Amino acid sequence: MKTYLDCFPCFINQALRAARIATTDEAKIKRVMDEVGAMFREISLESPPPATGRLVYQKVHLITGNPDPYGQLKDLSTRNALALYPRLKALVGESENRLLMAVRIAIAGNVIDFGTNRAFDMEREVDTALTRDFDTCDYGPFEDAVAKANEILYIGDNAGECVFDKILIEALNRPVTYVVRGAPIINDATLRDARQAGLDRVATLISSGTDAPGTILETCDEAFTSIYNQAELIISKGQGNYEALSGQEKEIFFLLKTKCPVVARNMGTEEGDLVLKANP
Amino acid sequence: MKTYLDCFPCFINQALRAARIATTDEAKIKRVMDEVGAMFREISLESPPPATGRLVYQKVHLITGNPDPYGQLKDLSTRNALALYPRLKALVGESENRLLMAVRIAIAGNVIDFGTNRAFDMEREVDTALTRDFDTCDYGPFEDAVAKANEILYIGDNAGECVFDKILIEALNRPVTYVVRGAPIINDATLRDARQAGLDRVATLISSGTDAPGTILETCDEAFTSIYNQAELIISKGQGNYEALSGQEKEIFFLLKTKCPVVARNMGTEEGDLVLKANP
Repeated sequence: MKTYLDCFPCFINQALRAARIATTDEAKIKRVMDEVGAMFREISLESPPPATGRLVYQKVHLITGNPDPYGQLKDLSTRNALALYPRLKALVGESENRLLMAVRIAIAGNVIDFGTNRAFDMEREVDTALTRDFDTCDYGPFEDAVAKANEILYIGDNAGECVFDKILIEALNRPVTYVVRGAPIINDATLRDARQAGLDRVATLISSGTDAPGTILETCDEAFTSIYNQAELIISKGQGNYEALSGQEKEIFFLLKTKCPVVARNMGTEEGDLVLKANP
Repeated sequence: MKTYLDCFPCFINQALRAARIATTDEAKIKRVMDEVGAMFREISLESPPPATGRLVYQKVHLITGNPDPYGQLKDLSTRNALALYPRLKALVGESENRLLMAVRIAIAGNVIDFGTNRAFDMEREVDTALTRDFDTCDYGPFEDAVAKANEILYIGDNAGECVFDKILIEALNRPVTYVVRGAPIINDATLRDARQAGLDRVATLISSGTDAPGTILETCDEAFTSIYNQAELIISKGQGNYEALSGQEKEIFFLLKTKCPVVARNMGTEEGDLVLKANP
């Protein structure tokens, strides 16, 4: 997905929010504003937004000295999500269509996102996600693809959300390789977060090697791109991975909640929609 | 008022909105983003926000070639406000305290603002402004100051709002000099807009000479600053004039609706409040 003009105010907003979490030094936060603003000239509208997100958070790190402003919030998200796990697991057990319910739960988990401008209430969002219709539902093809797949490459998004992904992985009934980021970026899941969520008990955990908030292949390591190229079926969670992978010629199912008007417009949906979308 | 860190995303938002009204050429709009972003380094947190607003809209003009993106919206605002005028005039006539009602109406008119992020509904806002309490009400001192004044310097803000100001000027029962901007900037009133609103029939119209969206004295012409320095009582409308004049040692009453969290915080009020505040 390309960068839209509306992304520019959002880049500044994200930089401001992250810098304020990283430091209380107003002069340093002002410098983050200055440096991110000065960076606009180098941002091509043809680049995916997470490529700029990566640079924005690098500036925050460089100027504030804090490499992981969202670290504590990630731990809190995981703890809150783990507290919900028994209830989510019971919901799947009671469902007529367990895979569909697990998909809904995995999408509900995508509400956990400190990068976008939306505030969220994890429990309320779960309730909504479990009852409302999908707005773009490729569930049929998804069910078929899972049935045919020998194994699945599952690209995760945020910490906390990992717990919801565990529910879906358990329902897929296939060997799963679960992919996390190579370094802390916003509240995206790393190996540490995936392990805290217990994903190491249901999937093979690997890092993509990227430090971008989305799986931009040029920023991933060779070990991952080799696995990616051979994957027969990919589940991609969240906006950042959609923004990075939507142009790819692979069998990918994007599971996400649209959290900004730009991604919603690009997908042909409304902001706030629950989306299960086959690529292309 | 100084510039807050929250102003930076807002500068970019304003630049984007104005550029989109000024042109449909995406490359030019991108250049506006680039140039405004690059400008951040030169913005001191000690400067009043309208000083940057001025530079932002200069960039929009320079890059898009459109000197007055909001011209048509201003005309529409004035027409809509003129259609409300008979009803507003009747409301004052029926009031027990005509001056207070006229003050409320003048503040209600301050909702007309295309610079901030708020959408507005002129008629609904008028209804709200006429019934809700002032959140910072220096009405007593205001009434006394008007009674004692030989003449009043009234610094206007936006086109359309001028019609609401006419209602207050008619209720003041004092000679009024009404001040407009020296050049089009956002939807701020110029001489043309004030005349369209019929203000030339109730006040002496002058320009401050500024091309900023607020009366930053350093950007005003000598004719105005001389009148300003001699003024015994000043009525200042809107956020931009408050941001520019709030540090001044003059008898000023600020009449406005707070339309952004930064100004609200600075005034010690909530966003959306109706404010009549004596300086200091």
